[in-house]
Amino acid sequence: MKFITFLENAEEKIGIISKDNKKVIDINKTLGSDFYDMTEFIWSNEEYIEKLVDIYEKNEKSHYNLEDVMIISPVPRPATDILCVGLNYSDHIKESQSVQDPDKKIEVPVFFTKRVLKAIGDGEIILRHEGITEEIDYEAELGVVMGKEGINIPEEDADEYIFGYTIVNDISARDLQRKHNQWFKGKGLDSHTSIGPCIVYKKYIENPENLNISSRVNGETRQNSNTKNLIFSAPYLIEELSKGMTIIPGDIIATGTPAGVGMGFKPPKYLKSGDVVECEIEKIGILKNIVE
Amino acid sequence: MKFITFLENAEEKIGIISKDNKKVIDINKTLGSDFYDMTEFIWSNEEYIEKLVDIYEKNEKSHYNLEDVMIISPVPRPATDILCVGLNYSDHIKESQSVQDPDKKIEVPVFFTKRVLKAIGDGEIILRHEGITEEIDYEAELGVVMGKEGINIPEEDADEYIFGYTIVNDISARDLQRKHNQWFKGKGLDSHTSIGPCIVYKKYIENPENLNISSRVNGETRQNSNTKNLIFSAPYLIEELSKGMTIIPGDIIATGTPAGVGMGFKPPKYLKSGDVVECEIEKIGILKNIVE
Repeated sequence: MKFITFLENAEEKIGIISKDNKKVIDINKTLGSDFYDMTEFIWSNEEYIEKLVDIYEKNEKSHYNLEDVMIISPVPRPATDILCVGLNYSDHIKESQSVQDPDKKIEVPVFFTKRVLKAIGDGEIILRHEGITEEIDYEAELGVVMGKEGINIPEEDADEYIFGYTIVNDISARDLQRKHNQWFKGKGLDSHTSIGPCIVYKKYIENPENLNISSRVNGETRQNSNTKNLIFSAPYLIEELSKGMTIIPGDIIATGTPAGVGMGFKPPKYLKSGDVVECEIEKIGILKNIVE
Repeated sequence: MKFITFLENAEEKIGIISKDNKKVIDINKTLGSDFYDMTEFIWSNEEYIEKLVDIYEKNEKSHYNLEDVMIISPVPRPATDILCVGLNYSDHIKESQSVQDPDKKIEVPVFFTKRVLKAIGDGEIILRHEGITEEIDYEAELGVVMGKEGINIPEEDADEYIFGYTIVNDISARDLQRKHNQWFKGKGLDSHTSIGPCIVYKKYIENPENLNISSRVNGETRQNSNTKNLIFSAPYLIEELSKGMTIIPGDIIATGTPAGVGMGFKPPKYLKSGDVVECEIEKIGILKNIVE
């Protein structure tokens, strides 16, 4: 069951793609609700989710043809900055010497955030920010969308706090990441957070720790791994992150990226104008962006 | 002119302390407006600020006695995570060996953020988070509250984007800061961002680069410096931060802390239960918190 945000007659709406993959169910029309956006819906999801699953499974009701709407990021205005984990696939640690000492053993997750006033979605443009960065890179990541408020959440209870899964392209300005020492500035440029194309409700992803994850630039495979290679699983990350720190519905955790990012090549393969970047995760879809 | 958020009959309101320091002017009552909170007011401040300055200067109209209201953080729900600068006073760099190589030359600002779903204010409690951290530390900082949206703001234009100045206590869990490598987790525990007691409108701080800044724990002076010792000034920080990254009204930039934090002592003087921490900045006031 895929949750999407879309434009219909230039108006932002939230919906679900029908089971036959051809139609869109309008959430507000279906529930008689008035949710402003996906983030607001996620705050209330527990009240409505079973009804929506039921409607989705019956595959009877829908409001638009999928081809008639324009899908944008499912969460165009995330509730908070994206909660990110660095260095969570061992092959990526090896290729990250320029921003991280490769001999430093990773015993606890390295957390940082991406500032995101507006997330771009599938089909949208990654800005170049010429003169500010010359080293824009991609990072395909499994994104965990939180669905319930909590603090000090034990790993074994983490699943009940999850709403679903999405794809995050953690676009990174490597020169700024290095230069400023802490990663925030290099991770948070405008348009450098791509999220989408949808959020898959957790019930429909049986094992989030066994999903193929890959990325391509202009059709050339760059990253190709599986979430089973994550050093720290999503439930463990939720336990660690929520220690002393409240997690709220709509928080998004980007779980880290496998090897094959641009900076890992010799010479590095940074993104250039016109490049088409695709991030793909099994059971979620393809998140495609083009560089300005 | 000091902007405050306060509780009056248990209701959150926004106001200005009268010129004689005895009364409170209620902003919504004065303007006939309906601002939900300080952050929403700051988004519209340019439209109303001159009228408010005029009323403040005339010192005629007011709505409550200052002693009858309870002041909370002027921005209890900041628009975004607090934008912070590490290592911006040279004497503090020397004492920070445990989280930073002291020989690494600081040529550009080190930016990081503090997650803050809720900021505590003057008089509120700093949570201990026992079992999660054993090394809670204080950092008195000049906070710059942004008043206008912008990107790629040149240093010389920065002042027009500033709304005012406040005090930030950048409470830090040093053990988590070290352990997680990037600083986010150690900086963002619940209740570990204290902001207040007010925001002084920029017009009333002639030279933000010459303000005494200090902190005390149980009356013992720990930090004692002046913002003239900042390595990077607020306008420069705004230029650097806004390169490729949109700044919005209500964003708060914490400009860094001088020497004298707990981790700088041998042995370190971390905060313990019952400690009273005061951060003071000339022309703004005293921000006092007690440890749980």
